[in-house]
Amino acid sequence: MVRTGRATGPTLAVVARAAGVSVPTASKVVNGREDVAPETRRRVTEALDRLGYVRRPRFETSAPPGLVDVVVHSLQSSWSGALLHGAERAASDAGLEVVVSAGPTRTGGGRPGHGWLDKLTARGSSGVLFHLAELTAAQQARLDGHGIPFVMIDPVVEPPEGVVSVGAANWQGGLLATDHLLALGHERVAVIGGHRRRTCGSDRIAGYRSALASAGLRYRPEYVRHGGFHERGGHRRMLELLDLPEPPTAVFACSDRMALGVYQALAERRLRVPDDISVVGFDDLPESRWAGPALTTVRQPLSEMAATALRLLVRMMAGDRPEGTRTELSTRLVERSSTAPVPATSPSPR
Amino acid sequence: MVRTGRATGPTLAVVARAAGVSVPTASKVVNGREDVAPETRRRVTEALDRLGYVRRPRFETSAPPGLVDVVVHSLQSSWSGALLHGAERAASDAGLEVVVSAGPTRTGGGRPGHGWLDKLTARGSSGVLFHLAELTAAQQARLDGHGIPFVMIDPVVEPPEGVVSVGAANWQGGLLATDHLLALGHERVAVIGGHRRRTCGSDRIAGYRSALASAGLRYRPEYVRHGGFHERGGHRRMLELLDLPEPPTAVFACSDRMALGVYQALAERRLRVPDDISVVGFDDLPESRWAGPALTTVRQPLSEMAATALRLLVRMMAGDRPEGTRTELSTRLVERSSTAPVPATSPSPR
Repeated sequence: MVRTGRATGPTLAVVARAAGVSVPTASKVVNGREDVAPETRRRVTEALDRLGYVRRPRFETSAPPGLVDVVVHSLQSSWSGALLHGAERAASDAGLEVVVSAGPTRTGGGRPGHGWLDKLTARGSSGVLFHLAELTAAQQARLDGHGIPFVMIDPVVEPPEGVVSVGAANWQGGLLATDHLLALGHERVAVIGGHRRRTCGSDRIAGYRSALASAGLRYRPEYVRHGGFHERGGHRRMLELLDLPEPPTAVFACSDRMALGVYQALAERRLRVPDDISVVGFDDLPESRWAGPALTTVRQPLSEMAATALRLLVRMMAGDRPEGTRTELSTRLVERSSTAPVPATSPSPR
Repeated sequence: MVRTGRATGPTLAVVARAAGVSVPTASKVVNGREDVAPETRRRVTEALDRLGYVRRPRFETSAPPGLVDVVVHSLQSSWSGALLHGAERAASDAGLEVVVSAGPTRTGGGRPGHGWLDKLTARGSSGVLFHLAELTAAQQARLDGHGIPFVMIDPVVEPPEGVVSVGAANWQGGLLATDHLLALGHERVAVIGGHRRRTCGSDRIAGYRSALASAGLRYRPEYVRHGGFHERGGHRRMLELLDLPEPPTAVFACSDRMALGVYQALAERRLRVPDDISVVGFDDLPESRWAGPALTTVRQPLSEMAATALRLLVRMMAGDRPEGTRTELSTRLVERSSTAPVPATSPSPR
């Protein structure tokens, strides 16, 4: 990322290292926060003076110190709560405050509209977290030009070289979900992915394929569908799968929402979960725990992802450059009641 | 509310009225937003000049124009998404941005901590929405002293005279839930309220009592319990109710979370919903729709409540004073599958 308007002299990361503290702690001292131990404050202040640290000019302009932007896809989804929770907590720990925008939903696609970017640059954001967004090259250049660092959480498509992003270990999650079904004896396992072009979904499907391959099972293209991550897609794709000459005995839906759509389709065909068909979701939204039956799913650590992204952003705001542009937090299988051993007879598609 | 630091001359509300436009529209013109029709802009500008409107000094200080604060109880609850969605949308319509804090959770109680208030006054917030908060007299005085208007959404306790608040029609909701159960023939109807001192919960219980009284049924104190709004409380109180010599045949839980705890208690005693016991919740969280069986509940229009609160705040920021300090948005019953006619034989508590 091109960093403009930086003062000369050491970055805050260098100061933090010299003082033997974390960047957020050094940032707290620089920003006059009180929740720092006196001895720590002394060490940091000493390092600031010794190294001749010059506060970044951005903090001294009209922009209020310490406002970071979190741009989410939609505030209505059950995701955004967990995400904002993690971001707000990590921001507060670093003495920052969070401005939230549900930008992309307004323009329909995953790209935040222009008016929003104008507002952000005019106000002088200290940094931005994007969730499920896709930036144009021009938008990225504009953020870079204003010296506004950003981190992407779960980018919609593979971000360009050099962009820092945080995501869940989607491939691993797909593998876990499929392995679980294979271990229960299922051999006809279908997958319902999200959007074809979204990385997170295709990584999950790649995990599914890897699990099949390791088990020596052949890949059947008719068992791979795309449901756009929403309930309706899960519902529709499941009906299609049931209409196959040889329907699956187990389904891995790449989002909990789609898994709930799968439940609906199965109920309509009078098939029982898990007696007739096993279902695994992905996300671990609150509703998955309360579904009837409770959904076995792959947990995405959304709060931790957002907190990690915010901590990376703080380092970038201090002039540091995180090593490794993509951070992946591991996923884990949460076993509940929607999966069971393969039934003796396969379900009739009716 | 005491308003300090106000410039003399007409308020923006007066200007808006003179120009025949809404306050948010007038505010857009004053704040230089572009999404205003040329003719409207001309009318507002003319009225501004003619009436000698002086922009409030707060907008000209170091604070960036157009940042409002939304302080929620917790960002982890399923509520906060709906709430922030409504607030963010209404803010954006008025050319404002939203800073979100999960203040109260840090300090344990419903009162935002002092550090947070310091930050807010130092930054110069344009206005604040509080959800489920309780402010001390000193905190209110401080906000007033800084000329920062605020609106409370679902205040924990009855706010003092003059404080503007928005809530759901809790009494009406309690009445709707109970009437629904009475119409199904239930006569042994219990209620599990939240915290004893929270207004929203006690209003719902008052609605329950009104419904019983209208139906000529006697009020039985042993049928009224308090579960603190959480799952665990719903679970525990339901077990107590089942251990009564004459257990209820229907339960109105004053939150969806408690209703889901009730489900757990009933499952443990091998009682079926709704065959053995009918259950009604309150809130209409996403998980209530997916619960097994889907929960009949009272819908609280959280997004609309937050949007309404934000629009009131915008009027107050413009120097207007909303008439009526408490706005209530109506609740409605969402019938799903957790309620049924009273069973022929009452459930055995086992």
